[in-house]
Amino acid sequence: MFPQHIIARKRDGHALTREEIQAFVRGATDGSWADYQLSALLMAIFLRGMSAEETAHYTEAMMRSGVVADLSHVPGRKVDKHSTGGVGDKVSIPLAPMVVACGVPVPMISGRGLGHSGGTLDKLEAIPGFRTDLALEAYREQVARVGCALIGQTRDLAPADKKLYALRDVTATVECIPLICGSILSKKLAEGIDALVLDVKFGRGAFMKTKAEARRLAEALVVVGRAGGKQVRAVLTAMDEPLGRTVGNALEVAESIACLHGRGPADLMEVTGTLAAHMLILGGVAADEKAAREKLHQAIASGAAREKLREIIAAQGGDARVVDDPSRLPQAKFQEPLPSPRSGFVREVDAMGVALAALRLGAGRARAEDAIDPAVGVSHLLKVGEPVAAGAPLAVIHANDRGALAEATQRLAAAIVVGDSPGIPVPLIEAVL
Amino acid sequence: MFPQHIIARKRDGHALTREEIQAFVRGATDGSWADYQLSALLMAIFLRGMSAEETAHYTEAMMRSGVVADLSHVPGRKVDKHSTGGVGDKVSIPLAPMVVACGVPVPMISGRGLGHSGGTLDKLEAIPGFRTDLALEAYREQVARVGCALIGQTRDLAPADKKLYALRDVTATVECIPLICGSILSKKLAEGIDALVLDVKFGRGAFMKTKAEARRLAEALVVVGRAGGKQVRAVLTAMDEPLGRTVGNALEVAESIACLHGRGPADLMEVTGTLAAHMLILGGVAADEKAAREKLHQAIASGAAREKLREIIAAQGGDARVVDDPSRLPQAKFQEPLPSPRSGFVREVDAMGVALAALRLGAGRARAEDAIDPAVGVSHLLKVGEPVAAGAPLAVIHANDRGALAEATQRLAAAIVVGDSPGIPVPLIEAVL
Repeated sequence: MFPQHIIARKRDGHALTREEIQAFVRGATDGSWADYQLSALLMAIFLRGMSAEETAHYTEAMMRSGVVADLSHVPGRKVDKHSTGGVGDKVSIPLAPMVVACGVPVPMISGRGLGHSGGTLDKLEAIPGFRTDLALEAYREQVARVGCALIGQTRDLAPADKKLYALRDVTATVECIPLICGSILSKKLAEGIDALVLDVKFGRGAFMKTKAEARRLAEALVVVGRAGGKQVRAVLTAMDEPLGRTVGNALEVAESIACLHGRGPADLMEVTGTLAAHMLILGGVAADEKAAREKLHQAIASGAAREKLREIIAAQGGDARVVDDPSRLPQAKFQEPLPSPRSGFVREVDAMGVALAALRLGAGRARAEDAIDPAVGVSHLLKVGEPVAAGAPLAVIHANDRGALAEATQRLAAAIVVGDSPGIPVPLIEAVL
Repeated sequence: MFPQHIIARKRDGHALTREEIQAFVRGATDGSWADYQLSALLMAIFLRGMSAEETAHYTEAMMRSGVVADLSHVPGRKVDKHSTGGVGDKVSIPLAPMVVACGVPVPMISGRGLGHSGGTLDKLEAIPGFRTDLALEAYREQVARVGCALIGQTRDLAPADKKLYALRDVTATVECIPLICGSILSKKLAEGIDALVLDVKFGRGAFMKTKAEARRLAEALVVVGRAGGKQVRAVLTAMDEPLGRTVGNALEVAESIACLHGRGPADLMEVTGTLAAHMLILGGVAADEKAAREKLHQAIASGAAREKLREIIAAQGGDARVVDDPSRLPQAKFQEPLPSPRSGFVREVDAMGVALAALRLGAGRARAEDAIDPAVGVSHLLKVGEPVAAGAPLAVIHANDRGALAEATQRLAAAIVVGDSPGIPVPLIEAVL
């Protein structure tokens, strides 16, 4: 099987066989295909598509390109959550301890996001001492002992995906549902989970801009994940304004901790609660959403979820005292309110605009090699529909540099629109598949 | 202009601008685009196409990626011929001296074909001493002095095409009309010509299998060549059986010489005469085809064409005595007739089958680094429609190796079908565009 023959078959619109897909993924892993052959096939797949069956073969081959973690020593059904990413999306941090406190183990291996604001790993690393670079053995041990580990992708996990993702990024082949499916699911299926809940976001601050695209991706993820032998649910959620009131690493950890104290913002709690409820159902500890929500409520009210977060932080070398004293998190030098230019109601908070302001402050990475400043970002963001008086703060900007502060202030001001009336609220949860 | 943005535009079906196409071709030439980005764009072009305008920009950028020969010191309109290639296609060798003898300079730079039988350069090199590796300066001087030079592609001519052609070969992006157009025309326009006659072949022994494909390619070549400021005509010719009665390098030179002695096979003379006639018209030395054919006939009858071939061979270091004594060309050790299994009429001579037999004998290259044996091949091939008696030769096989002879005999036998009736002849010249 010459690479060019396999490329030609996809180019001509044929479905590839399992063996052809395996040859492609093996070629990406062991270097037997040249990069220019991989990218030619990626473009052919982008333009010709792949069937659900092909995508399942692709996902399986990517998963098997590296180590598949064995968590059979951990009792109970192991359930993870994955989000396609959005601005202010810190859901994993309150969600994991809530779900574990309800008795469902959560093994969670995250990628380190390149983007406007940090990924989950970057947020967790804002906690002094917190380490995310656990080896696979330590991960297995911690999931068994604590019920949860929140770690970064190890080198031996789905190496084909690492290779192909890097190529896709520079060859305009990222936005392709079968390829996205394979990338997400190969890593998740390699974690050793039994079930997966997906948060597929759509809107201005999301990867998928429209509901229709997000639904197509969610459907594909569910079909392919199930073909991989896992229970899978997908929740479609809106991402036009940031989730919660903070964007920035330490600020988002503090907001996550507030959730576990029962003081989380309503939108963040709605999304976290919905995703967590489906995890409890798939984990076999709740019969339905109502029962699941009650259990989750108890885990917060009793302090069990907070205690679980302390355990996780301590297990990964972090300062667990942040759970009770978030002022131990890094603080920025300057904390400047952004005054509203007029009185009225917040009509629009453009998630992408907020993200770019945070990026300018140093909260995210423009390039993979950039360092992140954990302290900076935006807090106290008003939500769409909330009233504001002229001169009252629309948000607070946290900066460590006057120049960045000035630029970020301009960007943030441009991202928030204040109008005469509150407008009509948009539902946050669009559908559960 | 990031490569991935240009790739994304073509991926999404947009027409690329001249600047975008220039950036792509510059990227191929100076290495500022990675191979995997070039191949991703090539696949996007393959699947999304390019307009005539884009193809013209692409061709121009490829031509300008290297040196463009200046032949303004040569009086008269310079006209070249290019063929998309076929089995037994030795047309250039009789054609060039015929056209030059009629007063039209023919500057001809050929690629060294990778394929079943050798390219024009390989055929010429069967002449003892003949050199095709002239530098551009020697080429310019010889065209001025002799009216013709038959040389190989120099390193400084359209280097972007060399790079992209090699990539296309291993990424299944060869059979794409805009890319083929750019590849052919960029090199031809860089020769310093005023006009070009194209022989676009279709059929089992051609690159384009159907008339419709060949016509699309021919139309694109004409449009894009004219956009490049050249006079261009294309002739569509059938290529189901080999052209002439020989396949193999020295054998084809001998057959070409026979043409100049007035003893060429009818099909080869028909194609050569038609292409040459259009060259005389574009060269401004004949008003119409009838006048052109008369001039060409005179060039052969008077011996002027033979004399011109002697001059060209001598100018390029070859033994010009082969023109009068073809036995000076390399001869194979074994010359075995292939007997007809029955009496009847030749119904089919599969050009591809004959080519593969010749390849097995060593007449062509399976890989670019393979050496060619100039002496081997097939001669005395019967043409479709000709009668044959049982046991009489269908062809003569020239081999230097018994094993190759046995295998080639089998392949050749399978390529020739003898039936009860002569069948209905197919026109050789399909159309002139």
